[in-house]
Formats: sequence, C-alpha cells, structure tokens
Amino acid sequence: MSRADRADIAKAEVEKANAEFYAAFEACDLDRMSAVWAGDAYAASVACVHLGWQLLRGRDEVLRSWALIMANTPYIQFVLTDVQVEISGKQAVLTCGENILTVDDSDGDGPLSGGSAVATNVFVRMDGEWRLLVHHSSPVLNQLEEPER
Amino acid sequence: MSRADRADIAKAEVEKANAEFYAAFEACDLDRMSAVWAGDAYAASVACVHLGWQLLRGRDEVLRSWALIMANTPYIQFVLTDVQVEISGKQAVLTCGENILTVDDSDGDGPLSGGSAVATNVFVRMDGEWRLLVHHSSPVLNQLEEPER
Repeated sequence: MSRADRADIAKAEVEKANAEFYAAFEACDLDRMSAVWAGDAYAASVACVHLGWQLLRGRDEVLRSWALIMANTPYIQFVLTDVQVEISGKQAVLTCGENILTVDDSDGDGPLSGGSAVATNVFVRMDGEWRLLVHHSSPVLNQLEEPER
Repeated sequence: MSRADRADIAKAEVEKANAEFYAAFEACDLDRMSAVWAGDAYAASVACVHLGWQLLRGRDEVLRSWALIMANTPYIQFVLTDVQVEISGKQAVLTCGENILTVDDSDGDGPLSGGSAVATNVFVRMDGEWRLLVHHSSPVLNQLEEPER
C-alpha cells in the first residue's frame, strides 16, 4: 500500500470517528458519546467547548456536561460541511462547518430552528482507534465580509 | 535527557510559539503574524476562526483576514489563563482562556472594554519550529452553570 493510500485510509477513519461523535449527540446516547472520547492517559487532557460555553476540562467533567445537554435536547440534527482533516502521527485535527437543526421548546413539539457554527475537533490514536481529545464549537455571529483588496 | 525533560521542553516551545502569536496580534505586526503561521506543505491546511466568525481556510485568506483585523484594532491586549498543551509527535494542541482588553472606538481613545473567550490553537512542527496550523477562538456567551447531580 502506498503512503498516499495509507493517508487516505487514516483520513477516512478520522472522519468516521467524527461522524460517530455527531451521531451519538443526535441520538442523545451518553454511552456512545462516552466511547467517542479519549480516556486513560488522555483523560485529564480532554477538553470541550460547547457552543458559547466556557472551556471544560477533564473526561469526567466533559461527560457530565454531555449528560446535562442531552437531558435538555429533545431534537438535534447536524449537517456537516467543508470537512478537512490534517493528521500528524497519532494526532489529527478536523475542522468543519456545523449546520444545526433543533427544536426550541423543551417538549420537542415546537418549530424547528437552524443555526450555523464551526467546529475544531482534535483526535488522538489510542488502542487502534481515533478518540476525541478536544471539541470546540462556536457560533457564527458575524457573516463574513469579503476583505477589501 | 529523560523523556519527561524532553516533553517539558517541547511544551515550553509550544507555549512560546503561542505567546508569540498573541504578541504579534497585540503589536498589530503582520510580518510577525505571518511568521507565526505554518506555510509550504501546510499552507492549504491553515484554518482560522476569529471570534464569532466563520471558518477561514488557507494561509493567504487567513493572513488577509489578519491584515483587515489589525487595520481595525487600535488596541488589544490578551491575558491568557489555564493554558494546557498536548503534544503528539509533530502536532500539538493548546487550549486556553483569552481575557481580552480592547478599546471600542476606531481612533483608540475610547474607554477600555473587556471580554472572555476560549481558544484552541493547533501547532505543527516544521523546519525545527512550532508553527500555527489552526486558531479557533470563540466568545463565552453563557456563564456555565454547575450541572445538577
């Protein structure tokens, strides 16, 4: 297998791990979310920035935050755009746009609303799998103006 | 030199590269900022999310955005908190809080105002130096509530 082939396979694996992260959130499945995140030697280095939140550190605190968010999320769906991956050894950084569809009210019967965000997701390779080390999501507040040239 | 010593040195180098990034911004010095960011083989993988902005990709577009921002920043100062670095081979991810002091008006004579943000900065090792590959900064909009247990 050529080096380029191996790089393509690694990228596909990172993208799959990333897709599983969003699928776990959409399913509001804390066990699946727990399996997505890095643990063991990386547990203390785990970090997460939810949309508009402060930085949370440590696997336990991050998973507690997901439990809280999932308990308050009747419906959420992501369409990712412009996914790009850069891998170096056992660390990979993936950046993408998040197009988010949610319902606003707590019983999940309300109208759908949408929003745009961007995410940086850093993965580490452990035990033959890519696991999430850092998730940073942020709201797009300013529509970008084309810089004057 | 022990492995732990080498790891400490590498972390200090990443923190120094990170400090130079913020110093270049504070000085509004585009040449220094240009030297901070990765180039060559990484130029296309460079990505930047300014506070509340969309994702920008590619070294040229990112540096154009810095020129625009610097032209519109009469004064800015950062105090970083809670800096943590995780290095794997030639890639490093640094997360931190950004406490930002700016002036609001364009001539720089106005009152100072402050804000809180969080940043994820990914560095790559090239030509013996740590260069910035991804900068993602986001505003802290919600003060975190302690999860119910």
